Amino acid sequence: MNHNELKAPYLVFVGDAQDLLTAKVARGIAHWRPEKCIGQMRLPGAKADIGLTEMTVREAAAAGARTFVLGLAPVGGTLPAEWMPILVEALEAGMDIASGLHVRLNGIQDLVQVAQRTGRRLIDVREPRVEMVCGTGLPRAGKRLLAVGTDCCVGKMFTTLAIHREMQKRGIDATFRATGQTGILIEGSGVPVDAVVSDFIAGVVEQLTPANSPDHWDIIEGQGSLFHPAYAGVSLGLLHGAQADVILVCHEAGREQMDEMEGYPVPDLADVIETNLKLGALTNRNIRLGGIALNTSALVEDAALAEIARVQARFGVPVVDPVRTGVAAIVDALEV
Amino acid sequence: MNHNELKAPYLVFVGDAQDLLTAKVARGIAHWRPEKCIGQMRLPGAKADIGLTEMTVREAAAAGARTFVLGLAPVGGTLPAEWMPILVEALEAGMDIASGLHVRLNGIQDLVQVAQRTGRRLIDVREPRVEMVCGTGLPRAGKRLLAVGTDCCVGKMFTTLAIHREMQKRGIDATFRATGQTGILIEGSGVPVDAVVSDFIAGVVEQLTPANSPDHWDIIEGQGSLFHPAYAGVSLGLLHGAQADVILVCHEAGREQMDEMEGYPVPDLADVIETNLKLGALTNRNIRLGGIALNTSALVEDAALAEIARVQARFGVPVVDPVRTGVAAIVDALEV
Repeated sequence: MNHNELKAPYLVFVGDAQDLLTAKVARGIAHWRPEKCIGQMRLPGAKADIGLTEMTVREAAAAGARTFVLGLAPVGGTLPAEWMPILVEALEAGMDIASGLHVRLNGIQDLVQVAQRTGRRLIDVREPRVEMVCGTGLPRAGKRLLAVGTDCCVGKMFTTLAIHREMQKRGIDATFRATGQTGILIEGSGVPVDAVVSDFIAGVVEQLTPANSPDHWDIIEGQGSLFHPAYAGVSLGLLHGAQADVILVCHEAGREQMDEMEGYPVPDLADVIETNLKLGALTNRNIRLGGIALNTSALVEDAALAEIARVQARFGVPVVDPVRTGVAAIVDALEV
Repeated sequence: MNHNELKAPYLVFVGDAQDLLTAKVARGIAHWRPEKCIGQMRLPGAKADIGLTEMTVREAAAAGARTFVLGLAPVGGTLPAEWMPILVEALEAGMDIASGLHVRLNGIQDLVQVAQRTGRRLIDVREPRVEMVCGTGLPRAGKRLLAVGTDCCVGKMFTTLAIHREMQKRGIDATFRATGQTGILIEGSGVPVDAVVSDFIAGVVEQLTPANSPDHWDIIEGQGSLFHPAYAGVSLGLLHGAQADVILVCHEAGREQMDEMEGYPVPDLADVIETNLKLGALTNRNIRLGGIALNTSALVEDAALAEIARVQARFGVPVVDPVRTGVAAIVDALEV
C-alpha cells in the first residue's frame, strides 16, 4: 500500500548544520532509530553532531547503506547547489534518497534522470503515496493510542515515540504510526495526513492503522488540535480514522497563545479532553483518556514537578513530561 | 484566485438521459440559474427535459453561448465515445466545457489538444483551482450562513440555494458560495472543498468567503456532517473557515441510518446543533442557530407538517421544508 517506505540502513546527511535545532530531523532519527543508521555525513564546517560514525557516501555504500536521508531543512527552502553532486553520488552508489523538504526531489529533473538511470527511488515523504480510500468507520481488531494536542508543536511526536520505545522495552507488541514528515523519516514509513485530500483523511488513517492482533498497540502520532482554527479538520479526520481506544493529551505547560495564531488562546485541558472524547466516541465508543504529557521545558525542575502533580490531581490520570520523567507511568496504566 | 469560473450563458447538455434524476445537474442549473442558460442540448432518445430551448451546438454558439456544461453523469463513469465529436464541436464553436464528472476532461488527450488549439478551457469543477493557503482564523466583515447536516445528502445545497434566492427576492445583498461540484456548476464558481488537501480546508474556505460589506450575506453550501465517520474532517474545516454567524441544520425526516455507513445511526438533532455551535464558536463566538431545514419528502403532507411543527416546538427556531413550505420563515428571522 505504501510506496514511501525507507529501506534501512540509512546514511544520515547533516549538511553544514551549525546546531542540533537545524539538524533536528537527523537528530531524531539517530535518537529514536539508531539501529537503522549506519553513519552520518557532514559537510566541512558543520557543527552539529548527531553521534553516529562519520562516513562518506562511498564508505556508507560499501558498509551496506540503502537510503541517504536528508536530515535537515536548508535555509530558504530550496536545495543548495552544492548538495547536488552528493545526491547524484548517493544514487549512483545504489542508495535511495529520502527527504521531508518542501521542495520535492521528484521535481528536480536532473535528479529524476539519475534516479531513473540507476533504478533508485527519490522518496518525498511529504507526498502521500497511498491508496486514497474513504473511511468506513467499521471496527477492527487491535488497540490504538493517539496523541492529541492543545496546539501544534507541543510534543505529540516525541511522546508517542517514547511510549512506543517503553512498550518495546517491556515486550509489548506495538508499532509506531507516523503521520508527519519527520515521524515518517524516523520510522521509515507512514502517511503525511495533512497532505491527504480532505475526503480521504479518515480512510487513509484506517489503512495506516489496520486490523491487528487483539493485544497489538498502534501508537499513533497526532497532528494539530481540534482547537486549531486552521488544522482542526486534519485532527478530527485523524481521530475518527484512528478509532482510538486511548488518547493522550499533549500540552506545553505555560503556553498561553496558540503558535502563530493571533487571538487564539491555548484551550483549557479539560475542554480538550472532553471534546476529543466526545468526538472520538463516534467511531469508538470505548475511547478513554490514558494520560497527559506536559512539555515543561520552560519551567525549572521544582516548578515542573509541581505542575505535573497539580495536573495529575486535577484529572486523576498519569501525567508525565516525556523528557523529564519518562512515560513509564502512562504505560503502567495501559497495562492494567 | 479561482480559475474555474464558468462564463455564462451556458448550453446545458442533457445527453440521452432517460429521467430527471440522471439529469439532476442539468435540472439544477436550469432551475436555479435560468438566467445563465441559453438552451439545452439533448441526444436522440433522451427523455429528460429541463425546460430550456432546444439547441444544437451551432445554434447555441450563434446565440452567444460561452460554456457547454455537462449536466449529467454518464453510466459507468467514463466519457461515452459518442460525446467526443460534440465536445470537439463545442470547443471549435468557441465554448469552454465544464464538467463535474469523476473522469477528468483534462486527462483526455484528444480534448486537451483541441482546447489548446482553440484557446478554450476544459473546466473540471472537481479539481480545486485555487491558491492553497492555511487558515488564519482572523475575523472579517460581512455575515455568513452555513448549512450543516445530520448526514450527507440531506438537502444542504438545495436549502442554501433557496435561502439565497429568497434573499435576492427581498433585495438582501447575498452571494451563494458553492462547495461541491454540482453547486459549482449551478453558481458558476466555488471550490470543491472535499478535494482540497486537508491542511488547507479552512484557509480555502476563508478565501471563498472573503471580507465583505457588513450587511452582505455569504450563503455557504455545507458538506458532510460532523457525525460522519469518513467526512467529519471536511465538515469541521468548512465550519471553522466559514466563521459562520448562523448555521442551518439540515436533516431528512425519518432517516435513521447514515447513508452507506453501516452501524452509524443518524445523530439526534439536539446533538448536531450543540456540537456545531460549540466547535464553530472557536472561530466565531457569536455563532447561532438560524433554523432547521427538514427534508420531509418521505412523508405525506399531514405527517410532514406535524413533524415540522414538532421540531419547531422542540427547538424554538424556524423549521421549514424548503420544497414543501419554502424558506421564508428562516429569512424572516434573519432579518430581525
